Amino acid sequence: MVEDGAEGLSRLSAQLFGRTGNAYTIGLTGAPGVGKSTLGGELLRTARARDLTVAVLAIDPTSPFTGGALLGDRLRMQAHATDPGVFIRSMATRGHLGGMALAAPEAVRILDASGKDLIVVETVGVGQAEVDVAAATDTTLVVVSPGWGDAVQVAKAGILEIADVFVVNKADRDGADTAVRDLQAMIKMGPALSWTPPVVRTAAVSSDGIDELWDAIQSHRAFLTDTGELEVRRRLRLFREVEGLAVERLRLRVADLLADDQRLATDLAEHRIDPYRGAARLEAHVGEARTGDKART
Amino acid sequence: MVEDGAEGLSRLSAQLFGRTGNAYTIGLTGAPGVGKSTLGGELLRTARARDLTVAVLAIDPTSPFTGGALLGDRLRMQAHATDPGVFIRSMATRGHLGGMALAAPEAVRILDASGKDLIVVETVGVGQAEVDVAAATDTTLVVVSPGWGDAVQVAKAGILEIADVFVVNKADRDGADTAVRDLQAMIKMGPALSWTPPVVRTAAVSSDGIDELWDAIQSHRAFLTDTGELEVRRRLRLFREVEGLAVERLRLRVADLLADDQRLATDLAEHRIDPYRGAARLEAHVGEARTGDKART
Repeated sequence: MVEDGAEGLSRLSAQLFGRTGNAYTIGLTGAPGVGKSTLGGELLRTARARDLTVAVLAIDPTSPFTGGALLGDRLRMQAHATDPGVFIRSMATRGHLGGMALAAPEAVRILDASGKDLIVVETVGVGQAEVDVAAATDTTLVVVSPGWGDAVQVAKAGILEIADVFVVNKADRDGADTAVRDLQAMIKMGPALSWTPPVVRTAAVSSDGIDELWDAIQSHRAFLTDTGELEVRRRLRLFREVEGLAVERLRLRVADLLADDQRLATDLAEHRIDPYRGAARLEAHVGEARTGDKART
Repeated sequence: MVEDGAEGLSRLSAQLFGRTGNAYTIGLTGAPGVGKSTLGGELLRTARARDLTVAVLAIDPTSPFTGGALLGDRLRMQAHATDPGVFIRSMATRGHLGGMALAAPEAVRILDASGKDLIVVETVGVGQAEVDVAAATDTTLVVVSPGWGDAVQVAKAGILEIADVFVVNKADRDGADTAVRDLQAMIKMGPALSWTPPVVRTAAVSSDGIDELWDAIQSHRAFLTDTGELEVRRRLRLFREVEGLAVERLRLRVADLLADDQRLATDLAEHRIDPYRGAARLEAHVGEARTGDKART
């Protein structure tokens, strides 16, 4: 229902909303090939060993060309396929109002309401929308691997700003020291923050460093809880989401208004009205349409 | 002014709008390292040899971490630095309402009004926003290089759907035949279109295939002109942009409304009102605020 933006979703969401807020959410993002899924599998294993129930939500952008989600390599995670304490889902967005940015938190709420202790949201860290989805969690892990090399590309993607914990995965390979040093240098160059993201080395295929990563996540969680930041961040995320939903509803109305206003459309197409004046007129019409609705009732 | 969303921009835009619509726009996108800038330089050279004036707009996403645009390798293009028929600009967005998606067409319009015959818009083809900006042009070139290999990654980025012309750059390298074959297979798998994107081989550093690429662009332009598609597409792009501007103005109002409505904020934060009901209330308030404004005048 979330993927398709199916009818009845808002009613369902309303019913579940009171049961949410108990799960802790972890974002997991990084360039293709850094080992996000393997790392996600290791986090899953670690959480299960501590008797925590876990959901993993892997976000795949939808491509109209292929007609659906492209499932990545989830071999590691398939080891947990029969464990009732685990839920794994590769999710695409097809019809949800506002796309991935609004569908993902909705899906997370459903998993939260289902009683999972921990929810891992995995996205490919390319593109602002994908990065934003991973950032909309309690603790965000940004994963790189040795030879990620072109630090400029990573900086471009806006991915460094969102990290609560950096993970240098495949740390058994050459170049791990350089990657750690580069990250630490970039952290120093950035603005001073109340939380300085630690840089953790892992080799997920051999489970090296996973306990240290788990500890780093718990430290960040303790920081958020102790400072009251956790509630502040969750509240802000919720507000941004509600605003986003309102804006998407308004977007539909704006498109309808322009489709109905042949005069405005013609004036725009023939360059008699510029885009800013056109937009101001549509904005005004949204209010008027609303007033009209009321007059009729 | 466009980058910063400076005051006075809408007035300037209104004045220039009547002078726009003459330039032909080309989008140039692909993964990092496929040679987009070199190819852009070759297109520039070809256009100048035909006495066309050219602007190149390279879109760099802004990273708050580095505090501005990261300039890419524009060595090839710098050869044209003293040519008055050429304008080259690397652009970031810092304060423009609606970000890159709305800033880019605004910048293109200014270059159009300045009298340039051809405008090349270059973006990194990762992330939906970046891909969308390159797609919002008359002819969109999608560039790959041999060994682009993981076709799945390209498909994920939604980059195949937007191509009017495919370019296999660095075609002197091993794997070029495979890349061409893979693309042709993917085109066949896709929906049947009135225009089938040709696949052109280039080796931009040695200028091989650039004339063929130029011809492919001209063929697509002739197709758009002959079928009337050019006007239809430009009109739709303008409408989407005006809608986007209206939505961004409404977004600011929605955020203000939630900031002012302490009761709604508290009800949301304490899970007494679910996100969908909250959004519906904000949407209704947008209309009411407008009505209130009117009552006061």
